[in-house]
Amino acid sequence: MTAPHQRGRSGRRPGSPDTRSQILEAARTEFAERGYESGSMRGIATRAGVNAALLHHYFGNKEQLFVAAVELPFDPDDVAAAMASVPQERRGEQLVRTFFGIWDEPSRREPMLALLRSAMAHESAAALLRQFGTRVMVPRVTPSVQGPDAELHAEAAVSHLLGLALLRYVLQVEPLASTPLDELVALAGPVVQRYFDG
Amino acid sequence: MTAPHQRGRSGRRPGSPDTRSQILEAARTEFAERGYESGSMRGIATRAGVNAALLHHYFGNKEQLFVAAVELPFDPDDVAAAMASVPQERRGEQLVRTFFGIWDEPSRREPMLALLRSAMAHESAAALLRQFGTRVMVPRVTPSVQGPDAELHAEAAVSHLLGLALLRYVLQVEPLASTPLDELVALAGPVVQRYFDG
Repeated sequence: MTAPHQRGRSGRRPGSPDTRSQILEAARTEFAERGYESGSMRGIATRAGVNAALLHHYFGNKEQLFVAAVELPFDPDDVAAAMASVPQERRGEQLVRTFFGIWDEPSRREPMLALLRSAMAHESAAALLRQFGTRVMVPRVTPSVQGPDAELHAEAAVSHLLGLALLRYVLQVEPLASTPLDELVALAGPVVQRYFDG
Repeated sequence: MTAPHQRGRSGRRPGSPDTRSQILEAARTEFAERGYESGSMRGIATRAGVNAALLHHYFGNKEQLFVAAVELPFDPDDVAAAMASVPQERRGEQLVRTFFGIWDEPSRREPMLALLRSAMAHESAAALLRQFGTRVMVPRVTPSVQGPDAELHAEAAVSHLLGLALLRYVLQVEPLASTPLDELVALAGPVVQRYFDG
């Protein structure tokens, strides 16, 4: 839901940093080894040596704990809300604007780069990113896709955003790396929209 | 031009494996440290402790040596030729077909995955991939782009292919990972074409 250093939306107290980080570490291990579907709050509690009720108290439900464990500096629900706030024909543009709005801020970019780099090198991190993409992000993008094969189209749209991020931030290819956000939105928005039009 | 374990197109003898690999290693260091523009055949020869004439004899020109040093299992000129062989309106489709035709073969995919992984982790490998992209691949794609900002559009097209490769082969996200090549071409071809239409 939120990065571990931020307070949860609900206003719950964040708990002691040690307990929180033990739970997050246990969650990463559980989801990497067992997958998102099979991973359980109970299994994570056992790994962390705490009571399962404490997990719900700190992190809410399984999805919220998963998102916190992946440590991405944005709330997936905010991305979904941003898309839902514009008409169907502008959702491609809106997704590009929201996505690169996050990446363009260095402090938020770093944890995403770190996860992307880990996922290239380690199967456990790749498993986390794959599950985050398919279980958290793709379901928030598919409602904007019309026609059949919505999941495939949503994945293709997300893959394009990741590819642009790879060239813009990791490889720093010019002129793409220094293209202003508005121009990037004008460039890639209609292309992503094409996947949304089904 | 060709991977080091293959014979060059011109039929030149490949030289002793030791000398060749010394030259390729020296070339990777030279291009990573000095960049493609500033890197020179003479500088590479010095690093490898051989005569510059030998480099030309084994590898032809600077671009051919660079491509050999990057060790990608395809000839960039073949990609350019494949695109040039179809009408403008089918070049997006053709690029997707050629690109994923290469990636779909496990033996050719491995060296590309290795370079992509290295580029995520090491700046020197990122520099090589960036230079390969901008100096070798983008110039072969830009002639298919109509209108202004051809370089930016070519980069956006290439970034989409890399993003799809990331989800399909590294993260192995379904259904994208097992979508047959023809369906992938039908899905992404028209989208890449959009960048070509300017």
